[in-house]
Amino acid sequence: MRIDVIPSLSEVRSELLAGRTAIVIDVLRATTTIVSALESGSAGVLAAESVQQAVMLRGKRDVLGGERRCRRIPGFDLGNSPLEYTPEAVGGRRVVLTTTNGTRAMQKAAPADRIVAAALLNGEACARAAAGWKRDVALLCAGTAGAFCFEDGLCAGLVVSALQRLCGGTALVCDLGRSLAACYERHADDPATPLAACDSGRRLSSIGCETDVAFAARVNVSDVVPLLKDGILVPLAPARVHLSS
Amino acid sequence: MRIDVIPSLSEVRSELLAGRTAIVIDVLRATTTIVSALESGSAGVLAAESVQQAVMLRGKRDVLGGERRCRRIPGFDLGNSPLEYTPEAVGGRRVVLTTTNGTRAMQKAAPADRIVAAALLNGEACARAAAGWKRDVALLCAGTAGAFCFEDGLCAGLVVSALQRLCGGTALVCDLGRSLAACYERHADDPATPLAACDSGRRLSSIGCETDVAFAARVNVSDVVPLLKDGILVPLAPARVHLSS
Repeated sequence: MRIDVIPSLSEVRSELLAGRTAIVIDVLRATTTIVSALESGSAGVLAAESVQQAVMLRGKRDVLGGERRCRRIPGFDLGNSPLEYTPEAVGGRRVVLTTTNGTRAMQKAAPADRIVAAALLNGEACARAAAGWKRDVALLCAGTAGAFCFEDGLCAGLVVSALQRLCGGTALVCDLGRSLAACYERHADDPATPLAACDSGRRLSSIGCETDVAFAARVNVSDVVPLLKDGILVPLAPARVHLSS
Repeated sequence: MRIDVIPSLSEVRSELLAGRTAIVIDVLRATTTIVSALESGSAGVLAAESVQQAVMLRGKRDVLGGERRCRRIPGFDLGNSPLEYTPEAVGGRRVVLTTTNGTRAMQKAAPADRIVAAALLNGEACARAAAGWKRDVALLCAGTAGAFCFEDGLCAGLVVSALQRLCGGTALVCDLGRSLAACYERHADDPATPLAACDSGRRLSSIGCETDVAFAARVNVSDVVPLLKDGILVPLAPARVHLSS
């Protein structure tokens, strides 16, 4: 199994995605929020590109969430804090979510065979699903403003490290993936500290969102694997992992 | 002090270099060979872009060295193995060197205030020199075929990690630099193993150059800082480091 890491949206090339499992990563905060919503029993998350599109796609019972410049969009039910996506707020309901980078990352991953959303919360679960599908893997880091960012690299490293363990010698990891796996392993005991210190972590803390950063820093606390199905991210049924592995 | 890492030659932007100290890295093998030549008492290393240019620039007493596709160029005195650059071969003589990536990296670094060449051999020494100059730093990884490679990232991580120690809280490190510093710290006890396992390491081993990889994997064994001066890499006099620090 080949495992490649795409460091940011500006470096997406469709030949690295075609026929593969794409694992989209936007730790602060889109994919963390998506995992949080599905953990809270949301019926699914629809990632919309623009504010206008999100408003248009919203069904009667849907929850409308998202951010621009890290802040809640006026008129929306929720912002992009994973802590807002409680069972009370989203249980049994579909979420229409629009974020600066995360949504675009999902769309850029379109040439892939399957698309899942990973955060530190569910990195190991995503690796297990991808290992079961036995396809080559492309980890797509959303990054920030077209550039690599630490937190998405840390999560890519977590997934690569898990895939190496699960696939043993059959995992052929690109050089960036090797570097990021080592980075994750260096910080495995305490990912919260470097997450708070990196550019996005500091930016979020400076606008009062430090609890979001701490929430996002918890590793492998969720078994939810958000799988894109007919344009909506839904939880992969655990049974399917076992069937196909 | 700002510290940025440029992951490969294809991502060089002059605004990340202008007015800064540029630290050029091509661990396998150009910058390792340059350090080796200067350690062996070479009078200086002139990095030539093409084979033709190297032949033209060669003075009567110069040693002509270099590679294409990892192999010695026909008619040249030496290849690109750092082990060939012994005191007997290069002591007191200038080396004209042409390599696939390393030479281009030196030229791409031209907008910088000062340009030095770093390998794992002399990473700490380069960090000390850069810390003394008190300019912002750009670490330019040569990479392979325009893409990031593990070994140059490992060396960038070594230098960033040393700069963070030397500059304390005044070092503002980009996110990629943070990731690579962690990668280096993860492998600090045994850099030879991941170096042999990465793409370039395996490629060199497959053509019988595994001793070069092992040679390049030794960390901080040299105090030589190759500084570009009038187009030639010469050892920075240790006294200057102390004067300016």
